[in-house]
Amino acid sequence: MESPNRLSVLQALRAMAEGSLTSEALTQACLERIEERNGQVLAFTAVDAGWALAQARAADRGGGAPLRGIPFAVKDVLDTRHLATAYGSPIYAGHRPVADAACVARVREFGGLVLGKAATSEFATQTPSRTRNPLNLEHTPGGSSSGSAAAVADFMAPVAFGTQTTASTVRPASYCGIVGYKPTFGFLNTAGLKPLSPSQDTITLLARTVQDAALCAFGLHGMRVQAGPLERPRLAVCLSSQWDAVRPEMAEAIERIAAAAQRAGATVRRMRLPAALEPLIGMQGRLFAFEARQSLAYERQNHAAQFSPRLQARLAGGEGIDAAQYLAMRQRALAGRQALADLFGDVDAILYPPAQGEADEGIADSGSAQFGALWSLMHVPCVCVPIARGPRGLPMGVQAIGAYGDDLRTLQAAAFIHHVAQQAELA
Amino acid sequence: MESPNRLSVLQALRAMAEGSLTSEALTQACLERIEERNGQVLAFTAVDAGWALAQARAADRGGGAPLRGIPFAVKDVLDTRHLATAYGSPIYAGHRPVADAACVARVREFGGLVLGKAATSEFATQTPSRTRNPLNLEHTPGGSSSGSAAAVADFMAPVAFGTQTTASTVRPASYCGIVGYKPTFGFLNTAGLKPLSPSQDTITLLARTVQDAALCAFGLHGMRVQAGPLERPRLAVCLSSQWDAVRPEMAEAIERIAAAAQRAGATVRRMRLPAALEPLIGMQGRLFAFEARQSLAYERQNHAAQFSPRLQARLAGGEGIDAAQYLAMRQRALAGRQALADLFGDVDAILYPPAQGEADEGIADSGSAQFGALWSLMHVPCVCVPIARGPRGLPMGVQAIGAYGDDLRTLQAAAFIHHVAQQAELA
Repeated sequence: MESPNRLSVLQALRAMAEGSLTSEALTQACLERIEERNGQVLAFTAVDAGWALAQARAADRGGGAPLRGIPFAVKDVLDTRHLATAYGSPIYAGHRPVADAACVARVREFGGLVLGKAATSEFATQTPSRTRNPLNLEHTPGGSSSGSAAAVADFMAPVAFGTQTTASTVRPASYCGIVGYKPTFGFLNTAGLKPLSPSQDTITLLARTVQDAALCAFGLHGMRVQAGPLERPRLAVCLSSQWDAVRPEMAEAIERIAAAAQRAGATVRRMRLPAALEPLIGMQGRLFAFEARQSLAYERQNHAAQFSPRLQARLAGGEGIDAAQYLAMRQRALAGRQALADLFGDVDAILYPPAQGEADEGIADSGSAQFGALWSLMHVPCVCVPIARGPRGLPMGVQAIGAYGDDLRTLQAAAFIHHVAQQAELA
Repeated sequence: MESPNRLSVLQALRAMAEGSLTSEALTQACLERIEERNGQVLAFTAVDAGWALAQARAADRGGGAPLRGIPFAVKDVLDTRHLATAYGSPIYAGHRPVADAACVARVREFGGLVLGKAATSEFATQTPSRTRNPLNLEHTPGGSSSGSAAAVADFMAPVAFGTQTTASTVRPASYCGIVGYKPTFGFLNTAGLKPLSPSQDTITLLARTVQDAALCAFGLHGMRVQAGPLERPRLAVCLSSQWDAVRPEMAEAIERIAAAAQRAGATVRRMRLPAALEPLIGMQGRLFAFEARQSLAYERQNHAAQFSPRLQARLAGGEGIDAAQYLAMRQRALAGRQALADLFGDVDAILYPPAQGEADEGIADSGSAQFGALWSLMHVPCVCVPIARGPRGLPMGVQAIGAYGDDLRTLQAAAFIHHVAQQAELA
């Protein structure tokens, strides 16, 4: 058998159900991988091996809950009572929250366990963590869910919680060659998440297969779902002003996967982003800055010296926006959600780049978040799946974006695309 | 001069600007009123007089910020670093959060101060606090923002933060004869609010005038606004299936204020709630139960014995709803928001009852929340203003409900109605 830490969630659940694997063995394998690799990759900020194994043994004694025995990495903007929760900021070094985040409590409610805390950028903003891309340590893993993506890509954990406010899950998923699933806004309850832009902050999952992301998202609600490839999905490559910033290798990768999808039975058309939605792309950043400046008001007033210069500048950007402008932006976002809903009448998923291209060299910058902005603001489900390798040999993904609340169909469309990419050996 | 604790926020700001009042004198007067009355009313759960006065003296030394020197009561589901924050539950007795909630930090950022923590029902659900209606101690003040409403109605504080997920602000405002303002969802940043139903939880303001509510809401964004009465507002009494549960005195009070508004220059028409929105009234409670069950997952797993039986039953109600049903409910809510937006094309504010009638006797039950359900789910601004006295001599209000994001106009329409009620000596 493959080393247990390389199994998918689905494979691990099956092996545990058959009795050929224990959660303890799976968790032990993950811990060994962390021990071996975390010194270079720096994906985890806090691990308590003894506690993880104790949870695993308890899971082995327990019943057949949907997430039984599955170890989760938890992005460090999510509260964990047992493990230090620093939100990626020196202000909160060593902080021990009074309660677990709701999503963490749900992991345990449905038989899973907490493996450790995964590195995040500063309060999930642009100042990166020290995490490196496990596929090439000289490159960024993307952010802000950098530790979550790196941990999963490097086989330290089968699944991780991330978050996304702009592109903090789809970008690192693309850069690390894994699956990133941003559900419909609010599908995973945000209690215990350190707020940044509360009208957009979304708890997400990073995994190595679409099926695993679906299993975990619905497993966190006590359900068991199959998210096999949708048959003959109706796909649309969505063109917009943002394509000017897409590197040729990414544009070509999306063209290739679209053609391969068509050969595999999908209908694929090109569409133009409705003109009414174009201005929302730029507006998202202003809305973000306005809200983040308030979410971090306590820290800004009491600990601003411990903010990075980049964060200080970002929050200052929210200063010039007044409350009336903010309400007007919220109105436009609501209207945009309706305009977008109309697009999905005859489309199962929109295809859209998650990033400009491959991960850049260096870890001082985690790449542009622009390609997630509109979709995060629109609250729609997005699933990034790997579809290609770029000129440096690093992975690239594509976002499959579905209708608000239509998460399962979106996952199934993404599973189709992932399957096509694997069959064609593109990724 | 009137005793300072009886001044409106506007009056106090003016007196402080003129130099005829200090924040210290205002705060001292509030503290004396608390000392005199809190033993019976039980509005505050935590007050540190020395700290409040120290903040007031600092405000007196400070510049002319929009909220300069104004003491705020803070509902105890909002984090305060200096004062114990128990969320209305014995589980968190004595809890000291690591940071102030964003709205609390903003009070201080714009020159205001924290007077104390106001009692809340258990996690802002239906199990009431011990607070009594200051207008008649044998009656409920309503919930869940019971302490906030009682503190303001009883002149212990000029303004208070409340919250609303269903009717937790408009009902206590109606029962206590004051103004309750639930802004557009998210207008006041929710960082540091203990989540209950995150897709609906809204931070609110309770005050004695509409102008005060507006001053504080926009003052929390660093702005100074006037919310004088809208001229010739276009009003619509919105009929729905819920009117069957309205007591005759409330229905008559709304008829009288509608007639008086018309005489004062408003256009008033009757409209029927669109049939598509009717089912959302009942759906709101299911959505609430589904989300609350998750928001309190950690407490449910670790401290359920300290839940009230009523809360246990409410959370159990969320158990039978699966994730697919939840997503479908979210889709219907989004569609409803659009349907509702269409209504406001030629209407400035809808008039709707905030409660069945006057406050009931006894404090074991804080009254039905049903009249807030739809509007909380729809994310629209609601302002409850006093319009009448009921057969027991207790107050009754009406909700003025406006379009999403159109908070200032909604406040101005509410100011018109409040003015009409005062002129006609109805309230």
